[in-house]
Amino acid sequence: MPELSRIGVAIATDLLGEFDALINKRGYTNRSEAFRDLIRAELVRESSSRPTGHVVGSLTVVYDHHVRLLEEKLTELQHNHSRLILSVLHIHLDHDNCMELIALRGTSKDVQRLAGLLTATKGVKHAQLAITASSEAL
Amino acid sequence: MPELSRIGVAIATDLLGEFDALINKRGYTNRSEAFRDLIRAELVRESSSRPTGHVVGSLTVVYDHHVRLLEEKLTELQHNHSRLILSVLHIHLDHDNCMELIALRGTSKDVQRLAGLLTATKGVKHAQLAITASSEAL
Amino acid sequence: MPELSRIGVAIATDLLGEFDALINKRGYTNRSEAFRDLIRAELVRESSSRPTGHVVGSLTVVYDHHVRLLEEKLTELQHNHSRLILSVLHIHLDHDNCMELIALRGTSKDVQRLAGLLTATKGVKHAQLAITASSEAL
Amino acid sequence: MPELSRIGVAIATDLLGEFDALINKRGYTNRSEAFRDLIRAELVRESSSRPTGHVVGSLTVVYDHHVRLLEEKLTELQHNHSRLILSVLHIHLDHDNCMELIALRGTSKDVQRLAGLLTATKGVKHAQLAITASSEAL
Repeated sequence: MPELSRIGVAIATDLLGEFDALINKRGYTNRSEAFRDLIRAELVRESSSRPTGHVVGSLTVVYDHHVRLLEEKLTELQHNHSRLILSVLHIHLDHDNCMELIALRGTSKDVQRLAGLLTATKGVKHAQLAITASSEAL
Repeated sequence: MPELSRIGVAIATDLLGEFDALINKRGYTNRSEAFRDLIRAELVRESSSRPTGHVVGSLTVVYDHHVRLLEEKLTELQHNHSRLILSVLHIHLDHDNCMELIALRGTSKDVQRLAGLLTATKGVKHAQLAITASSEAL
Repeated sequence: MPELSRIGVAIATDLLGEFDALINKRGYTNRSEAFRDLIRAELVRESSSRPTGHVVGSLTVVYDHHVRLLEEKLTELQHNHSRLILSVLHIHLDHDNCMELIALRGTSKDVQRLAGLLTATKGVKHAQLAITASSEAL
Repeated sequence: MPELSRIGVAIATDLLGEFDALINKRGYTNRSEAFRDLIRAELVRESSSRPTGHVVGSLTVVYDHHVRLLEEKLTELQHNHSRLILSVLHIHLDHDNCMELIALRGTSKDVQRLAGLLTATKGVKHAQLAITASSEAL
């Protein structure tokens, strides 16, 4: 268990009431947990915006597997950047479309560059990068 | 002055250290102030996503004033929605381009609809909506 | 192969030059492909903002597996919403932290609600939803 | 008038149909205009993410004018960065709250730094930066 600090925060009673209503609605049962999540989300936004920040996250890619040579190209690209890729989950969405969830770890810059290359590949219909954590904030 | 509450938050010492470093870098001199800003920003994200949430904010529009009838159309659109518009600041960016900062207040849905109409007007090059506050969080 | 249309687009030569430079940098070799990606991304932004829009995507979750009962809670939550969950990839990030990539399909509203519940669970450090496609745009 | 190019874009008929429905709903009467707006929005996202990219935009700030010395601090900060600030619109929202729309021009890095300083000032409740245009895309 990590060492815990207990800090005091001064906050207008009205604002606190609205915050409690919001986190209640979202299913939080513990206010400190909600504060920690807010902090971590802010640290992630910060890390993602620094090219050298270390991040983990995922790229979700949807593509039509009928496009000629597409799967070969995606595999080739992934192998050329294998040090950034932790693992891949492949899903058959329907007759035509595949979805891949690619777990990534590396500098913000490298992760974003690889995401760009996969997105730009002809036949890839959608791609969405989710930077989930700065390594520092883990 | 609004009534103040003082609450305790339990947080891993490491995570707190990173948060303090971040808010320091951003120029905060007071940790409670940073917490309050995080809370208000989260409440705004929530309000903006509810169509009936009351918001204030601004629309920033850049356009080329040479486009025929554009200024007439923008003025007409603004007058048709004048109950949403608090005030407008007009700036001459360069020989061709104007920027308008339009202060808005209303439901999230109405504000977004007006922003959409102004954005879609031919000759408007850029438009960016900034939802700044839920009326509740003021 | 889907039926193809060929349309003409009028665009300032300068603006087209900048667009070509941008997509070149991103690795596109085909301008139509870049246009199609822009369109699909815009359709996804639209679907995500409609509660009843059908979407596919992923939730990336990072958590500390030492937190008591956390894995049980996450599993329970996922089983209670199993019709939304296509598949899950589990990664051991380091001694303390796990990352799960959860492939999701359903209405924007349901997918966002499940993401909220998983995010709010005590011990979940980060969670990021990536809405990747509207079912319509597949 | 800038020089115009006319380009051809190949696009699946279904996808084009959905795009036309979307832009119709948004109030576009001209498909080329919608394409140009998509391109410009993408160029802006790119410029904002490069620290040295030149941008114009606005910062919308909401604050409580009763907070002691706040207006002095905001004025001081703005004067210290006056080369970034084109103009300011001040609005009295209600008894307690003021909103300022600050028109900005400069490098992405400088504009974001100033936005951070204004946001962090004690008493500022909300602040939202809207990067509206890369100078290149004007």
